[in-house]
Amino acid sequence: MSRELRSLLAEAVGPANVLAGADASPDYAHDESLTCAPQTPAFVVRPGCTAEVAAVLRIAASRRIPVTARGSGTSLAGAAIARPDGLLVSFERMNAILEIDEANQVAVVQPGVTLTELDAATAAHGLLYPVHPGEMGATVGGNLATNAGGMQAVKYGVTRHNVLGVEAVLAGGDVIRAGGRFVKNSTGYDLTQLLAGSEGTLALVTQLILRLRPRLAHHAVILAPFADAHELTLAVPRLLATGLDPVVLEYVDALTMAALAHTEGLASAVHESAQAYLIVELESRTADRLDEDVVEVAEFLVAQGAAEVYPLDQAAGRRLLQARERALHTSKAAGANDLLDTVVPRAAMPDFLAEVQRLAADTGSYVVGCGHAGDGNVHLSVFQQDAETRQQLMMSVQRAGIAAGGSISGEHGIGVDKRVYFDALEDPLRMDLMRRIKQAFDPAGILNPGVLFDPVEAMR
Amino acid sequence: MSRELRSLLAEAVGPANVLAGADASPDYAHDESLTCAPQTPAFVVRPGCTAEVAAVLRIAASRRIPVTARGSGTSLAGAAIARPDGLLVSFERMNAILEIDEANQVAVVQPGVTLTELDAATAAHGLLYPVHPGEMGATVGGNLATNAGGMQAVKYGVTRHNVLGVEAVLAGGDVIRAGGRFVKNSTGYDLTQLLAGSEGTLALVTQLILRLRPRLAHHAVILAPFADAHELTLAVPRLLATGLDPVVLEYVDALTMAALAHTEGLASAVHESAQAYLIVELESRTADRLDEDVVEVAEFLVAQGAAEVYPLDQAAGRRLLQARERALHTSKAAGANDLLDTVVPRAAMPDFLAEVQRLAADTGSYVVGCGHAGDGNVHLSVFQQDAETRQQLMMSVQRAGIAAGGSISGEHGIGVDKRVYFDALEDPLRMDLMRRIKQAFDPAGILNPGVLFDPVEAMR
Repeated sequence: MSRELRSLLAEAVGPANVLAGADASPDYAHDESLTCAPQTPAFVVRPGCTAEVAAVLRIAASRRIPVTARGSGTSLAGAAIARPDGLLVSFERMNAILEIDEANQVAVVQPGVTLTELDAATAAHGLLYPVHPGEMGATVGGNLATNAGGMQAVKYGVTRHNVLGVEAVLAGGDVIRAGGRFVKNSTGYDLTQLLAGSEGTLALVTQLILRLRPRLAHHAVILAPFADAHELTLAVPRLLATGLDPVVLEYVDALTMAALAHTEGLASAVHESAQAYLIVELESRTADRLDEDVVEVAEFLVAQGAAEVYPLDQAAGRRLLQARERALHTSKAAGANDLLDTVVPRAAMPDFLAEVQRLAADTGSYVVGCGHAGDGNVHLSVFQQDAETRQQLMMSVQRAGIAAGGSISGEHGIGVDKRVYFDALEDPLRMDLMRRIKQAFDPAGILNPGVLFDPVEAMR
Repeated sequence: MSRELRSLLAEAVGPANVLAGADASPDYAHDESLTCAPQTPAFVVRPGCTAEVAAVLRIAASRRIPVTARGSGTSLAGAAIARPDGLLVSFERMNAILEIDEANQVAVVQPGVTLTELDAATAAHGLLYPVHPGEMGATVGGNLATNAGGMQAVKYGVTRHNVLGVEAVLAGGDVIRAGGRFVKNSTGYDLTQLLAGSEGTLALVTQLILRLRPRLAHHAVILAPFADAHELTLAVPRLLATGLDPVVLEYVDALTMAALAHTEGLASAVHESAQAYLIVELESRTADRLDEDVVEVAEFLVAQGAAEVYPLDQAAGRRLLQARERALHTSKAAGANDLLDTVVPRAAMPDFLAEVQRLAADTGSYVVGCGHAGDGNVHLSVFQQDAETRQQLMMSVQRAGIAAGGSISGEHGIGVDKRVYFDALEDPLRMDLMRRIKQAFDPAGILNPGVLFDPVEAMR
């Protein structure tokens, strides 16, 4: 059976692109989740084109074999780990930038393209794909699956605001296209938007049309330590009300900054009396306007209670932002046991973060981190060895986030990791609708079973 | 039966809010579609709150009665016309602005709020809801249903980019909430986005959370006649590449401008040698920057082949934009027989418009209009008395639009009017998925039957 399956798959994608056992690198068994155990799939399949993806799905559909898509395996929620009896469809060979269309300001790309590759290609045209989650090695296919966000979402939105169209293979092997090289569309239900954030449970995306923007020439970063973290979070909505339109608006707590100072050589950034730090990036078409805006933001932040305001030169600014992006790695290296990705209304952040600290103290845990302050999306590392205590703490934090008008995941997705919170806290009516949508797309439940929902009984 | 139904409905919403026969204004029988015949519904029902909407839907579900939602009846596609055996649920009483939340920059509103009302309320807080389709008497509920766009979409996106959350009543009467006062969310499928553009076929929306932006203080409008319409359309993507970020980027053809000059007193705007006109609106936080940008855009447009460039004073600028918004009414008054709302990639506009003129000439028709040049979304009025010839022409134009990489409707929706094109030209695989989604939400097919899809057999 396994041998027959292998030969069918080899026919679909070529023998060199069906890997199993010792042939398959252990990398295929895991993603960047902190809590999911690695799982070796039955086969790793590496299709080279849409037709090959369709052929693989037809084989999987006819035998009800679970299928999990993988980009570069940077999921933080276990959404890119295949089932032991399943196929892992790796998009590593489908990594072509098919077109940078300047006139329509779109990129047409295959899902395996990484953000680093796309950034280089768009820069050559004076254009920008503005979605920059912390990991530039992530693929655009994975970004779509999780509806990835990142630091620049405060100005440019998340993946769903920057994907205009897709080609995708349905569970039965049919290929559909949706959307196109335009922003406006009112022609039936928006299937592109439905696939954004669907974590590989509805279809396998094989091509994306991404919206590009003019790449502005001038950037500046401002670092502002606050003696009072609460004052920092209060300053955030006020800064956004000015219309100064920052491209990045991040907070970093004192412990995380101390760690970054250590691991990233940022000692000069640490301010003795700071409880938290605000990082603001501005961008402009002209150097003069940028300078004016930097002065205006600096004065504004002082008025809002910043202990100091440091406008950084370009190199220092870039180093600080890169360090901020590596906060997750620093945290993992320090032994963090789990991650929170809660999103709350931005004005609810002060109270929510205070509540998190109370809950952490009550359970003898450390919860530290940083966050996309402009978007109310916090990334907190949870240090608590005891699994049961940790899960209770995380459940309480998530419940507090929802009570504050928020949601479980701002950008990492539910995957497998957050299923326990999703199942317990998500509105049952919403869950029921989601399940029906899943059934409409994938009645046999072969696409990423276990992610978002339990594997359907038919698959057992 | 009808009497019993009336008394059930009266119990749900109060006797004064169930209208039929002579009680119901003839306004309830039509929307702004040019081709749909008016239809008097069995009852007009005017709920005052979410619970009343739910009660109405429970009654409708138990008897399989068709239900059509209505805001202010400005649909251009017949999507707000109820069936003769159905209920028209008018949201005119649910027109409260519940909250303007400055810190989170959102408005929480009921669906019956008009754009004019929302604009006044947000202005008082220095904020802006940027979606301005041509009709400011339209309601936000209707805007969500059609995923309305309008002139400012080139900078701010369409309704789907500006709605963050909804409360909605499902076909069976259950009330769900989705999204919230935040932009980032990766917690299962995005039901808010699925409802945007669903034309009342999936659920009745009873509350919206809308994203607001800082209202910039300074605005300027530039009018640029082009002797060559093709050159105008070529200039559009180039202007967008500069990063000057216009808030409006419209074209108006010579015939339409002549008509507007007549009906709107804009004689001074007409330029003898012009084949078409470009209208650019800029906005800025400061008057100085606005002035600089106006000069830059003016010089740019001259270099791109504009015959003249007129920076308008604020009053003249506003008058021109308002006249542009009334182009549809002017066109209706002139006896237009139908409307096109095709969207194509913006760089495909020159060739697409040339093809439209060929098709018009071939059939002895006039096709004139204006469009959202920055978005590739054209609004063309079709003057052709013969219904069969007109439908053939429109089918050919839509087919050409799709061949150019476009879609049938950019912002008006399919409704009933465009069903013939949707059925003929939409990809059957996509249609099949949409039908399955419809069934997932509304298995009995009571929500706006005939819109997007045929009424299901069960309802006959």
